[in-house]
Amino acid sequence: MAQRRPTMHDVARAAGVSPATVSRVVNNERYIRDETRAAVERAIAELGFERNAAARALRPGQSSDTVALVIEDAVNPFWSAVTDGAEQVARSHQHMLVVASTRQSYDRERDLLRDLVLRRRVDGVLVVPTAHTQRDLHTELSRWAPMVFLDRTPAGVPADAVVLDNQGGARKAVQSLLEQGHRRIAYVGGDPSVTTGRSRLAGYKQALKRAGLPYDPALVRLNAHTVDDARTAATGLLGLADAFFADNNRMCVGVLHAVRGSRAGVAAFDDIEFADLLPHPITLVTYDAAAFGAHAAELLFARMTGADTPPRRSVHHTTLVTRGG
Amino acid sequence: MAQRRPTMHDVARAAGVSPATVSRVVNNERYIRDETRAAVERAIAELGFERNAAARALRPGQSSDTVALVIEDAVNPFWSAVTDGAEQVARSHQHMLVVASTRQSYDRERDLLRDLVLRRRVDGVLVVPTAHTQRDLHTELSRWAPMVFLDRTPAGVPADAVVLDNQGGARKAVQSLLEQGHRRIAYVGGDPSVTTGRSRLAGYKQALKRAGLPYDPALVRLNAHTVDDARTAATGLLGLADAFFADNNRMCVGVLHAVRGSRAGVAAFDDIEFADLLPHPITLVTYDAAAFGAHAAELLFARMTGADTPPRRSVHHTTLVTRGG
Repeated sequence: MAQRRPTMHDVARAAGVSPATVSRVVNNERYIRDETRAAVERAIAELGFERNAAARALRPGQSSDTVALVIEDAVNPFWSAVTDGAEQVARSHQHMLVVASTRQSYDRERDLLRDLVLRRRVDGVLVVPTAHTQRDLHTELSRWAPMVFLDRTPAGVPADAVVLDNQGGARKAVQSLLEQGHRRIAYVGGDPSVTTGRSRLAGYKQALKRAGLPYDPALVRLNAHTVDDARTAATGLLGLADAFFADNNRMCVGVLHAVRGSRAGVAAFDDIEFADLLPHPITLVTYDAAAFGAHAAELLFARMTGADTPPRRSVHHTTLVTRGG
Repeated sequence: MAQRRPTMHDVARAAGVSPATVSRVVNNERYIRDETRAAVERAIAELGFERNAAARALRPGQSSDTVALVIEDAVNPFWSAVTDGAEQVARSHQHMLVVASTRQSYDRERDLLRDLVLRRRVDGVLVVPTAHTQRDLHTELSRWAPMVFLDRTPAGVPADAVVLDNQGGARKAVQSLLEQGHRRIAYVGGDPSVTTGRSRLAGYKQALKRAGLPYDPALVRLNAHTVDDARTAATGLLGLADAFFADNNRMCVGVLHAVRGSRAGVAAFDDIEFADLLPHPITLVTYDAAAFGAHAAELLFARMTGADTPPRRSVHHTTLVTRGG
């Protein structure tokens, strides 16, 4: 006997709630107790819905012809370029791209994803998970719409991911500072609990180790989130360090402000458009951000059109360049 | 007798086509001859549909809870900031913001607007019209969903518009270069047929006139569209000019590349994040781009919730700042 597709009633029975409650959870309505919502989402997960069956069973109606991109911050030029690449691919597949920003808040990420997947019925989601992400959210929502992780990967969620070579890129940049003769290289970075931050810090440590230099925590400033944070952190290290590695483009702008007029070396992850205009040279870990976004979108459309291969992690290579000076 | 609301059949009769054809035009389906589409759109216009009546008559169903922002290029930091401001307002009204880029193509603008308004049924549109825009497109589509123009205004379309003080900003910047002692000020700009470009060029001319200086076309390079275009244009003027006014941030980056190592003065429209890091001073026409986007979105939501005042044009003031050096 062919397996019967689960219905809203099956989910309701498994969760011990009424079908109306399942519908309210699915439609992401307000005033549903957290425990009730969790029970329904658990029931959906436990019933082992095949994704499309779940969509058909609980979400009758047409495709929205829309995919979503949930990023950290639309103003950062890295995300603008990623958005541009993803939008072009979406358009080539006759889909619109909806862009929303988490601003690094897990609550916002959760609300956005539920709204996009359950209520607005987007056909797929590209998501940059926030730092404090919980695996259940992505695991459960990815049963309703294919999900591809971008830039960061939450542990244990079976979905495609497209990331940069964070560790290798950071290692090469720090090695370049070492080759330029610097020995006391400071690290200015963001959140070390996200995979990008953790991997870049690991690349920094690896470069020091290979050069036979000790890792000195006094030269490391983490948890900077804005240009001003990074500027303050780097200014405080000016007497201690002879060079700086900034772990992203925001950190880099802050470091550049701090080192103005000094002879400190600077290297950073991410490209910076104006680097060629600077009066001193800077070493940058570059990559094609638009191609990165486009590649993630292509993986998403492959899943949306039925690709059934095991989830894979795709690593984009980086290129070291020296600019300015 | 109260006026009866027009139906799809009324439109079909007026256009001389079948109701099915009206439906196909409204749903923006393919393989409809341009003349047929034009006839139906004309009929809709001629019947003088009150917007909401039209929506109810021809587009039954719920609100999409989505508004659209149609911009030129998502990668430009100006548009990223505008998007960020508009997204926050949309979210505060429980709407999603869909962002799409015209890449300065009228065909793309037309296809995007039809898709968004007629097929995807967005509740409202913020649009930056392309240079060669045709008034009919906006006039007709704005009967289906409120439309607010951003940054540029097509002539003769009765809709709200939010623009910058382009002429005043450019005039102040050029006056500043004159006060710095420059006399042969070059102008590097984009498309002079869009209202922003035209107004900024007018501001440049006005500043020269007030200073009793002649307008010299040999110092003016228009129709630059990329950083490289601007760099080439400015490089060609290095022997002729003692200062440059760039009419937007892309033009400015090109000019900055061209003047590296020279003593030419530089002023530009738009803020530039890295200006403080430059080795020479630069005068910038700044404004709050996020507030600009937010203000346009607020006007759109006012229209969507029934504001019935005459269309108005809102001009955002600019502030001159000197950075770097």
